[in-house]
Amino acid sequence: MRLLEERIEKDGRVKDGNILKVDSFLNHQMDCGLFMDMGKELYRLFGNEGVTKILTIEASGIGIACITALVFGVPALFAKKARTKNIDGDVYTSKVHSFTSGLTYDIIVSHRFLLPEDRILIVDDFLARGQALMGLIDLVRQAGATLVGCGIAIEKCFQEGGRMIREQGIRVESLAAIESMSENGVVFRR
Amino acid sequence: MRLLEERIEKDGRVKDGNILKVDSFLNHQMDCGLFMDMGKELYRLFGNEGVTKILTIEASGIGIACITALVFGVPALFAKKARTKNIDGDVYTSKVHSFTSGLTYDIIVSHRFLLPEDRILIVDDFLARGQALMGLIDLVRQAGATLVGCGIAIEKCFQEGGRMIREQGIRVESLAAIESMSENGVVFRR
Repeated sequence: MRLLEERIEKDGRVKDGNILKVDSFLNHQMDCGLFMDMGKELYRLFGNEGVTKILTIEASGIGIACITALVFGVPALFAKKARTKNIDGDVYTSKVHSFTSGLTYDIIVSHRFLLPEDRILIVDDFLARGQALMGLIDLVRQAGATLVGCGIAIEKCFQEGGRMIREQGIRVESLAAIESMSENGVVFRR
Repeated sequence: MRLLEERIEKDGRVKDGNILKVDSFLNHQMDCGLFMDMGKELYRLFGNEGVTKILTIEASGIGIACITALVFGVPALFAKKARTKNIDGDVYTSKVHSFTSGLTYDIIVSHRFLLPEDRILIVDDFLARGQALMGLIDLVRQAGATLVGCGIAIEKCFQEGGRMIREQGIRVESLAAIESMSENGVVFRR
């Protein structure tokens, strides 16, 4: 998606350790007009798949997921990182390891909102090592729902997550796919 | 806002301890069409205030904030609960005590996204004891930005947060204001 690539070139900053900072428009401050364009692009890609729900994980996936859900005309659902007493009843749970924080945490979704008849599009801001995405895919499988695919804002193609998930036969569409990056800038896969 | 009150009457569930569960449409599964109606109502209330940015706190405020930001045509910004290494540089920070979890945590916003010239509308899903909102208000003050007001989805009027914040001269608008609630249902303030 040219618009997102241009925005990354203009406002993204590459930091040590293969970190791409996009906090001015994607995951701290959020350009919701850009999210609308991203949601429309995801609708172009997945709009004929009968999607019934958009699934994401807190926190930085929620904005993109909600505006995508608005475009699709379906609800959004976010998996919670387990630390609240405020979810009751039966939940699906999976474990996610974060290489950023070094922590492993549980993610949970209520049984009531992930149903066998659901056709799920997973949406998230980043795909790098694929840990969060694999946790979400696990939740969809536990529910017996159909996974239509994954729509990702930014994929780091030089990390293994995208390959691992596509090898499972899952459709993954990235709106910006980064081949490599350095202090000199970002090279996109075309 | 009649539409939100009706939805609370239809799908909200009152639990022990003055907990109102609205996880089927507000803070776990999210009805983003409803969020659009809420964003339009907030625009009716605050649209002539020259708002430059919508500020919220992760996680459950993000969806409403993003769709409200879309309506206002301004960026959204969410305060992070401090646990990531991925925010660098200078941040404003404040402490928030959660009565739900019993924990006190730091919230942070980058200096780069909260500016003295900003006119901030704070948006959140709930106002009860006001702890999260007071943390956000503190961040706005530290930045020297102008606080236009607070737009809240659901206020529990029988808890002290709304009174405390209004006594500071801050405009607080709640789309649904709950006077009292019990197993028999919810009574709204009209």
